[in-house]
Amino acid sequence: MKYIQSDKNPQVKQWKKLLTRKERDKSGTYLVEGFHLVEEALVMKEDVEEIILSEKTEMPPGWDYGSIPVTVVTDEISRQLADTETTQGIFAVCSQPKQSITSGKTYLLIDSVQDPGNLGTMIRTADAAGLDAVIVGKGSVDIYNPKVLRSAQGSHFHLPVLSGDLTEWIDKLVAENIPVYGTALENGAVFTEAAAAESFALLVGNEGSGVNKELLAKTTQNLYIPIYGNSESLNVAVAAGILLYYLKTAK
Amino acid sequence: MKYIQSDKNPQVKQWKKLLTRKERDKSGTYLVEGFHLVEEALVMKEDVEEIILSEKTEMPPGWDYGSIPVTVVTDEISRQLADTETTQGIFAVCSQPKQSITSGKTYLLIDSVQDPGNLGTMIRTADAAGLDAVIVGKGSVDIYNPKVLRSAQGSHFHLPVLSGDLTEWIDKLVAENIPVYGTALENGAVFTEAAAAESFALLVGNEGSGVNKELLAKTTQNLYIPIYGNSESLNVAVAAGILLYYLKTAK
Repeated sequence: MKYIQSDKNPQVKQWKKLLTRKERDKSGTYLVEGFHLVEEALVMKEDVEEIILSEKTEMPPGWDYGSIPVTVVTDEISRQLADTETTQGIFAVCSQPKQSITSGKTYLLIDSVQDPGNLGTMIRTADAAGLDAVIVGKGSVDIYNPKVLRSAQGSHFHLPVLSGDLTEWIDKLVAENIPVYGTALENGAVFTEAAAAESFALLVGNEGSGVNKELLAKTTQNLYIPIYGNSESLNVAVAAGILLYYLKTAK
Repeated sequence: MKYIQSDKNPQVKQWKKLLTRKERDKSGTYLVEGFHLVEEALVMKEDVEEIILSEKTEMPPGWDYGSIPVTVVTDEISRQLADTETTQGIFAVCSQPKQSITSGKTYLLIDSVQDPGNLGTMIRTADAAGLDAVIVGKGSVDIYNPKVLRSAQGSHFHLPVLSGDLTEWIDKLVAENIPVYGTALENGAVFTEAAAAESFALLVGNEGSGVNKELLAKTTQNLYIPIYGNSESLNVAVAAGILLYYLKTAK
């Protein structure tokens, strides 16, 4: 095990850069933090490049990390790498998987969602609902943002989560006869009118402005969730949950 | 309009104390922040005791605040009262409504939810689903916490949101023949087996440990949402949304 004491060390500097989207995009890697997420990452060992451990943190007994290099750092460096206020002092550098989907039947498409908690919660919900993939369009928060990873609670390691061009994806899915359901506050059908289908894609959008109109124009059908009370709308992650579970369990 | 320049002013000190639950409980008042929430509060004028405005903020034209006193404060004081990083510089001190529910048919009961975003989102969802009241049990975050108010986006002013004893509420609702559905990860029925009913209460619980077992033992039936993928659970606010909309729209 290597031991690094100085935060001037080039490797430490490189890890810290992974807190920015720019460097994550450039390097094709990202940082996960905390026992739960590192443990989930280790299930996909080929994607874990290295483990970083605070000198105050013990590697949990029984973890099989094979030949993955482990570096021990000072508590101070550990805190510099952390996105949380009280870090557990364990991190993994992971490579961003090159994923391609050829035989998916159920998708969540996400357009311009800004809040990392919302994006992460939707990835977690898509995982729970057993979807085949999540496709995140341009204008959304980075899928490897630390808060997205935390809110998703490990679901990044359970199903493909891809950045992609939603226009192309909708064309492709419609061509494959997979119904694509947009979500809109108006000019749609009540969601409970959607026909049951083994395959579907659900398209949700920005917290304030909803799904881009050009994308909505390309969908098979647009759905809305009725508001029975006085709130103006639902939180996007709650709306995605209601619709995904409806589409999965509709008869 | 009064103008206060010193943050040593006793009124400023009292407002700042409203950032703590202790003082909110003691005074029976709370602070709302931002144009949207103050505007929503003004719909219920009798509950708004005063409005506080930063010297850098203009009162929106057309707002009808009647005889409610308005105090202008320095930008520095405004920032001290703010829970957000970039405050809009408008606040209202509201009295906590004394609400009693006698003829409700649909309820959301919340046990020990810790995250203010989750609690606020559930209040917003209960409003959207047209419920009659939200009852928040002991051990939950304060319903007048600034982040709860923000996540609820004004729904506190749309339906009764009460602190209450959940044991007593469940007994009362069951005695009124209102089915009370608990939520559990196991030992329940799949939610889609719940019978349609005009009246119901849904009971959701803590993010980590779920609903207290003693409460679950008192419900009419306990429900679970199937996990089709590999995530361990759903976010509690997403789960509440799925179940509330199922119960509202089930046939």
